[in-house]
Amino acid sequence: MTRPVLTAYNWAPDEGRGLVRDMRVRWALEEVGQPYDVRYLNWGEQKDPEHRARNPFGQVPAYEEGDVVQFESGAIVLHIAQRWPGLLPDDPADRARAIDWIFAALNTVDPVVWDQVIARIIDAKQSWAEDRWPSVLQRLKVRLGELAAALGDRDWLYGDFSAGDLLMVQVLRHVDGAILANYPTLGAYVARGMARPAFKRALDALQGGQTGKKPADWPH
Amino acid sequence: MTRPVLTAYNWAPDEGRGLVRDMRVRWALEEVGQPYDVRYLNWGEQKDPEHRARNPFGQVPAYEEGDVVQFESGAIVLHIAQRWPGLLPDDPADRARAIDWIFAALNTVDPVVWDQVIARIIDAKQSWAEDRWPSVLQRLKVRLGELAAALGDRDWLYGDFSAGDLLMVQVLRHVDGAILANYPTLGAYVARGMARPAFKRALDALQGGQTGKKPADWPH
Repeated sequence: MTRPVLTAYNWAPDEGRGLVRDMRVRWALEEVGQPYDVRYLNWGEQKDPEHRARNPFGQVPAYEEGDVVQFESGAIVLHIAQRWPGLLPDDPADRARAIDWIFAALNTVDPVVWDQVIARIIDAKQSWAEDRWPSVLQRLKVRLGELAAALGDRDWLYGDFSAGDLLMVQVLRHVDGAILANYPTLGAYVARGMARPAFKRALDALQGGQTGKKPADWPH
Repeated sequence: MTRPVLTAYNWAPDEGRGLVRDMRVRWALEEVGQPYDVRYLNWGEQKDPEHRARNPFGQVPAYEEGDVVQFESGAIVLHIAQRWPGLLPDDPADRARAIDWIFAALNTVDPVVWDQVIARIIDAKQSWAEDRWPSVLQRLKVRLGELAAALGDRDWLYGDFSAGDLLMVQVLRHVDGAILANYPTLGAYVARGMARPAFKRALDALQGGQTGKKPADWPH
């Protein structure tokens, strides 16, 4: 069979913490036990036409596995979960319910978390940043409270660990630690995800690939 | 077979324009020709425990089809597209590429559009709203430019009309008309989507269900 090829950065602003979206794919491949190769980009090359032919939004990841060519990390994780056993239940109705959490992570929780990242990092020095923060925080708190209620005292969102948990954990890893501390069951959930051997293997592989340099004109 | 039951509002702030997420599901069901029933909620009932048991985030939609119970509109559209023919290509590799656009709509384009909706509607009267707007607009423009480049002069994003187009059109319908006018191929793309008979049937059905009243304490 064709060995998948993942496109990832050899340096990124998170400096090897595995917050960039290629980590979602690495972790999924490690969970199902599928070896893969990596094409590394220097930071900046994601905007070149050569990479835009793989990912029209000029980001990582990209994924190639024979005729399967994808660029959205959520779609790639879903593909991996449907292609190899280990990341979704077998029963069709259970599978549909588990897939629900893939979309909950990406379309319901990620937007409010992303808003927090923009507010706290990208726009942090803007004159209005401080005045706006309560509004961002309020939306984030509502969602985190709802997610904590949905998780309850279970280990994972629906049945065994599945692709939706993988994505939710990666989304929640972007939440400021001081905020997440108000939701101890969510903090424990993230810790459970990060304690999985497949997560650790993926992070090790990602960090091993960080051989690139911070750009000389990097603003931070 | 079990006829699907969709949960939707009988009144919503968009006043029947089909911008609420149940429209994604109605449109998908109309595309595949699957009849369905609707459970209507009065505005406000989405936060009640009875509905939260269906959708833990207290939103619409919810979808029930025998043992399949889902609450994320993206997951429901994907389920419908995998369950009945008409919304995804048959070839597995083509199908994976088409599914990429489901996630591009929801996880790459929707966040910047959602940010515009928050800026222009929800937070529009905040003291910092005007100063922040250029930053929101800039991110939106980057994504819309990339999407227009990816679409090129084709009718749909990958092959024939598919689930990703359905979701992308619904996402783009939230873009301010004056902004979208700068991307004529995207405007034409949205118009093509809305001209589909299934879209019109879905919107008619949605509007026919708008028998509820605006809450007396509605702020706008």
